[in-house]
Amino acid sequence: MTVRTGRHFLQIPGPTNVPDRVLRAMAAPTLDHRGPEFAELTRRVLDGLKPVFDTTSPVVVYPSSGTGAWEAALVNTLSPGDRVLCFETGHFASLWRDMAETLGLDVEFVPGDWRHGASPEAAADLLTADIAHRFKAVCVVHNETSTGVTSRVPEIRAALDAAGHPALLLVDTVSSLASIEYHHEAWGVDVTVTGSQKGLMLPPGLGFNAVSPKAIEASRTARLPKAYWDWAPILDANAAGFFPYTPATNLLYGLEEALRMLAEEGLAQVWARHDRHAAATRAAVRGWGLEVLCADDREHSGSLTAVLLPDGQDADAVRKIVLERFDMSLGTGLGRLSGKVFRIGHLGHFNDLTLAGTLAGVQMGLELAGIPVGPDGLAAALDHLRTA
Amino acid sequence: MTVRTGRHFLQIPGPTNVPDRVLRAMAAPTLDHRGPEFAELTRRVLDGLKPVFDTTSPVVVYPSSGTGAWEAALVNTLSPGDRVLCFETGHFASLWRDMAETLGLDVEFVPGDWRHGASPEAAADLLTADIAHRFKAVCVVHNETSTGVTSRVPEIRAALDAAGHPALLLVDTVSSLASIEYHHEAWGVDVTVTGSQKGLMLPPGLGFNAVSPKAIEASRTARLPKAYWDWAPILDANAAGFFPYTPATNLLYGLEEALRMLAEEGLAQVWARHDRHAAATRAAVRGWGLEVLCADDREHSGSLTAVLLPDGQDADAVRKIVLERFDMSLGTGLGRLSGKVFRIGHLGHFNDLTLAGTLAGVQMGLELAGIPVGPDGLAAALDHLRTA
Amino acid sequence: MTVRTGRHFLQIPGPTNVPDRVLRAMAAPTLDHRGPEFAELTRRVLDGLKPVFDTTSPVVVYPSSGTGAWEAALVNTLSPGDRVLCFETGHFASLWRDMAETLGLDVEFVPGDWRHGASPEAAADLLTADIAHRFKAVCVVHNETSTGVTSRVPEIRAALDAAGHPALLLVDTVSSLASIEYHHEAWGVDVTVTGSQKGLMLPPGLGFNAVSPKAIEASRTARLPKAYWDWAPILDANAAGFFPYTPATNLLYGLEEALRMLAEEGLAQVWARHDRHAAATRAAVRGWGLEVLCADDREHSGSLTAVLLPDGQDADAVRKIVLERFDMSLGTGLGRLSGKVFRIGHLGHFNDLTLAGTLAGVQMGLELAGIPVGPDGLAAALDHLRTA
Amino acid sequence: MTVRTGRHFLQIPGPTNVPDRVLRAMAAPTLDHRGPEFAELTRRVLDGLKPVFDTTSPVVVYPSSGTGAWEAALVNTLSPGDRVLCFETGHFASLWRDMAETLGLDVEFVPGDWRHGASPEAAADLLTADIAHRFKAVCVVHNETSTGVTSRVPEIRAALDAAGHPALLLVDTVSSLASIEYHHEAWGVDVTVTGSQKGLMLPPGLGFNAVSPKAIEASRTARLPKAYWDWAPILDANAAGFFPYTPATNLLYGLEEALRMLAEEGLAQVWARHDRHAAATRAAVRGWGLEVLCADDREHSGSLTAVLLPDGQDADAVRKIVLERFDMSLGTGLGRLSGKVFRIGHLGHFNDLTLAGTLAGVQMGLELAGIPVGPDGLAAALDHLRTA
Repeated sequence: MTVRTGRHFLQIPGPTNVPDRVLRAMAAPTLDHRGPEFAELTRRVLDGLKPVFDTTSPVVVYPSSGTGAWEAALVNTLSPGDRVLCFETGHFASLWRDMAETLGLDVEFVPGDWRHGASPEAAADLLTADIAHRFKAVCVVHNETSTGVTSRVPEIRAALDAAGHPALLLVDTVSSLASIEYHHEAWGVDVTVTGSQKGLMLPPGLGFNAVSPKAIEASRTARLPKAYWDWAPILDANAAGFFPYTPATNLLYGLEEALRMLAEEGLAQVWARHDRHAAATRAAVRGWGLEVLCADDREHSGSLTAVLLPDGQDADAVRKIVLERFDMSLGTGLGRLSGKVFRIGHLGHFNDLTLAGTLAGVQMGLELAGIPVGPDGLAAALDHLRTA
Repeated sequence: MTVRTGRHFLQIPGPTNVPDRVLRAMAAPTLDHRGPEFAELTRRVLDGLKPVFDTTSPVVVYPSSGTGAWEAALVNTLSPGDRVLCFETGHFASLWRDMAETLGLDVEFVPGDWRHGASPEAAADLLTADIAHRFKAVCVVHNETSTGVTSRVPEIRAALDAAGHPALLLVDTVSSLASIEYHHEAWGVDVTVTGSQKGLMLPPGLGFNAVSPKAIEASRTARLPKAYWDWAPILDANAAGFFPYTPATNLLYGLEEALRMLAEEGLAQVWARHDRHAAATRAAVRGWGLEVLCADDREHSGSLTAVLLPDGQDADAVRKIVLERFDMSLGTGLGRLSGKVFRIGHLGHFNDLTLAGTLAGVQMGLELAGIPVGPDGLAAALDHLRTA
Repeated sequence: MTVRTGRHFLQIPGPTNVPDRVLRAMAAPTLDHRGPEFAELTRRVLDGLKPVFDTTSPVVVYPSSGTGAWEAALVNTLSPGDRVLCFETGHFASLWRDMAETLGLDVEFVPGDWRHGASPEAAADLLTADIAHRFKAVCVVHNETSTGVTSRVPEIRAALDAAGHPALLLVDTVSSLASIEYHHEAWGVDVTVTGSQKGLMLPPGLGFNAVSPKAIEASRTARLPKAYWDWAPILDANAAGFFPYTPATNLLYGLEEALRMLAEEGLAQVWARHDRHAAATRAAVRGWGLEVLCADDREHSGSLTAVLLPDGQDADAVRKIVLERFDMSLGTGLGRLSGKVFRIGHLGHFNDLTLAGTLAGVQMGLELAGIPVGPDGLAAALDHLRTA
Repeated sequence: MTVRTGRHFLQIPGPTNVPDRVLRAMAAPTLDHRGPEFAELTRRVLDGLKPVFDTTSPVVVYPSSGTGAWEAALVNTLSPGDRVLCFETGHFASLWRDMAETLGLDVEFVPGDWRHGASPEAAADLLTADIAHRFKAVCVVHNETSTGVTSRVPEIRAALDAAGHPALLLVDTVSSLASIEYHHEAWGVDVTVTGSQKGLMLPPGLGFNAVSPKAIEASRTARLPKAYWDWAPILDANAAGFFPYTPATNLLYGLEEALRMLAEEGLAQVWARHDRHAAATRAAVRGWGLEVLCADDREHSGSLTAVLLPDGQDADAVRKIVLERFDMSLGTGLGRLSGKVFRIGHLGHFNDLTLAGTLAGVQMGLELAGIPVGPDGLAAALDHLRTA
């Protein structure tokens, strides 16, 4: 058994540290999901979600992981054999591609080096060339959780617009929503996919699709089989405050409380806080003389930072030391980054001193692992926190 | 806002009253779902589930509703156009049939009157006649939550065996598992479907498939598209204590506590408790001079009782009075039973005095609604509780 | 270990069933008791308490039991050898008398039969006769928790007024505040003593003194030694939102939530609810052919009912059966009532169906214990609940 | 309203950060304090407390603050006019002295400079000179929470023994128990006073007296008035698992969980952890070029560090900045230290990274307040944490 003498530092890039307010809200007794009190809760939650996605259209909530919400976005809008444009921005983009293929879609996967976001230039080229409009959807991972790179979604949108291309724009915001600036409607996104366990500050267990009118229109003729994920019965039932199947009541209680907290802080302030913590973290990485994985200054993630170790060093050895000595969980390198990077999550319910403790733990862990690092990482981060 | 001056009586047939132990367990901080501590939790939970299903084979856990677990059972074992045998035992059996058709299966739906369980005789006839073994699966709802009728699964199994039929047996135990006697393995069930929010005493949000070796074998060649629901990557990851996508951590905490409670009480005692409460409830219904919907004494449900009102009476009017006057939620009549029955849930975390309060509320509600009822319903129930 | 299959029925006359809202509020992280956020909490709580006592003067809150608040009332207002007038209304009045004597006061203890409240007539006689004003205080237990008898405090006040007697009026409302109508100021009470664990719906751990200006005046010259209980430093510190020693932070969180609940329901409605439940309970006792201990119809308690068993019957045997068979705690007979009565608490966070369950448990317990009782107790209570 | 974007850092020297395990344990439903289940809880808690004090004699638990437990120690063992020997080690020692005088004791107060512990030499001189054994008790604050100085209790005991003096030894361990090495029995302490809200990791609300047989013997003849605080009825009732008045049930639930956590970690490890964190903190203070208030290397506190600012600097200005900018509460300078020191609590449920975050916050706060400090404080602390 783990003997814990203080708070665990859960600094993976999600699930994130759930606020005690949210945990306590979730501990309320379960309600009748067909009763009037529940209907009011549903309406408060569905209304409260809209400003977080920055949309006036509906948001669909599933008892599911974020992966389930990916599937929902695809099966509601596409038909077998449909061509979709995806970008190899990292591990999760690759998984989404795999899922699309498993479901019978025909994926054009723009290759990438896992250090850059989706290329607006490549998008422009492919979309412009696609005179027949064979691409039915463009799928972008807004913030690639495996790399700490944030794709420039507005530029992808611009590429679609410039090409006059009618493809749907599907965006994964699992690790960006409520952390990194995002505008479902203004950016012309058709389906925004997310999960509960990151910026929304909940435990995992809820998946979300924010849908545009165009997406709903598409769903009427899309022919991939869909039952659980089908938007139509959910949107119907939601209108009266209900769900077509038993919703995850207690996670919805937590969601209501989390939405209240986001409203109290204000989304612009939420984004600014994440940006500031991300900048402080990059200052630390530079101070250690290490490299941030993200290779484009326009694309640094506000929610996590992937740290690239020098060749021959084992990032998982650092993580193990940090976990065992300092009771902090860091994110592992996923897929082709295995062993080469570790990831620092600085998203969700988070503040300056928790970041300072986090970076102190990383610095000590690097030193204990024998990685040659400069001594000034933490100091540089504190300079940023103190002055920015 | 509801001003609640005491505990709400959540006497729908699920979600059920969640024990405070489970709610508090769920309020623990979220853990790294890829770390060693989580792996131990996974193993404890997956091992602890097996005796509840009475199986030695794996149990797959989804972040989903029970509906999702239905879909999982179908898409993992069947291929487009496969023929399946279903029984019209009530609303949920009809919904499962609808889902099967939506997913592209060819359903033989044995008609029923919503007052009886799945007919072993009809099963025997159809399976014996199916010399070509065109039925790939038989789907039975063990306890039909809309009617309070429990199908005799062992007799369906016997029909399969007598016919020498290789069809898979898929059983929905959403409102029976951990309430009504059930044996996945001894009864030769291939997929047992359930959800978290009934006998498992959790909030909704988890779906389960207990799978037989034969079901796993079938899943290797089944061709319905599957991604989220695919057992294979889950079983692979589970072996190491993990999940292929982020699991619903805090519901798993609650599940561990609920499994502990079931083990403390002992499953045989859990079933006996439910049977006893069901019998007391039927004694009350008889004492009121009303009719239990279930028309076969071999098929009374241990988890809920549907009460049929005389023609011309509105069951939902009773429910409304009971909710507004006594802060108790009763189950509504679903589908064709709308307005004709109300359902009393007596499952999950439940004891004699809560049943007494429940039946007192029903009795007063019936009287206030002007339903002509005999005065001795509650007294008859108490006689049963006191002496049985 | 107790294997609990449903909610325990905590039907002693306090501690009472704590609402889940209060329990969850108490689970918030502990705050700096000298910081600005705490100061705001203090002010909200101290302001919110005033309407519950119906006073505009301060309320002093101690980390203590109600017993401690008794001591506080005495040591702040009296000097060694002071004469005080007390009434033998039951066990708790006797304990308070004992405490007064232990602390060096000279107690006149008007004898009683434990079935009536404090006698306004005796009070009038003694106070009128006390021309020298040797009585410095009159101590009354508003609702005697051991007997279920509520003393008529306004009539005691009238006796003081009629005699023109300057003695302080000290009233124990441990089991009446926020359950039974009470007016600290309008009734001319000088110190109202209470605890957290009854009508205030909190766990035990807080004691209260609502104080009149006259009581504060008296405290300036009172000479019983006092340190922990001394009002003066508390009132001083409270003015700025603080306490002279570390307050019981998390119980104060719960108190804030409980005060919010009382305000939502409205005190008049709270009192009416308790009265109605008490009347239903007495209807049950009569239906069983048993005797309510309280012998004066003007003095029936709204918070509990003590049930007197026929000679030769053992009330604790009934309680044991009820606990073991039905997981319900009833109050034991205290002091001279040991074995002769059991007490049913119907106060705090409580509603009709919980009362119905409670009375069903008592009825079954009586029957199982072989007490000859009429069969119509519960039915009579339900008639009351349904129609009143 | 405070908008909190991450965990508050409660780094005052108590109340301390309550573990979520303890908060959740406290949220369990309140039990009948006269029932068999409660009796078992009482026994587990009272037995579990003994190893924490390192005693085989009883421990008395009060619903009170630590201040109340001070009063209990005095009123149970002493009589009006008794002479007691106290030491001016700081603010709390002065308050205890004040209380003793308020209660009618005759205090010899050995003056001190608030930078040293109780002087064993002064004790030896006074006790040796007291041939008439007029001192009935010696009162020592083991760890002075206002200064961060730990008195050498064994040397005070040795002074008593060397003088052959029969005075009782009363020790305040409010901020040392379960943090700093302590042995009630081996050190010959007669009454050990403590509270729940520091090393015991609970919210405030419980006071404790561990008592020696000699103290119990003294209590039989001690004549200070005592009612609430009287050990005798408590010890009597405790023997059967009960309390003479309603105990603070839910805090006892938390206590049981906290005792379990202390047992899991092991007391020796608990002490070592606190020592290590204290040493790291002092390294930081030295690195900043500031002075630790404690002036004797044998007396550094394991639970808190008081940091002395250069003349003319305002410690409360630093605290205000740290609270407003970094959401961390630090301890203020008390009494004569007001404005001159701030105090860093590093006790209770605490770990390396929380200490790192704490010291980072202090360092940034000092810099923002314009206090001239060296840049290497935090780095020095991390060196200690990494290597010790």
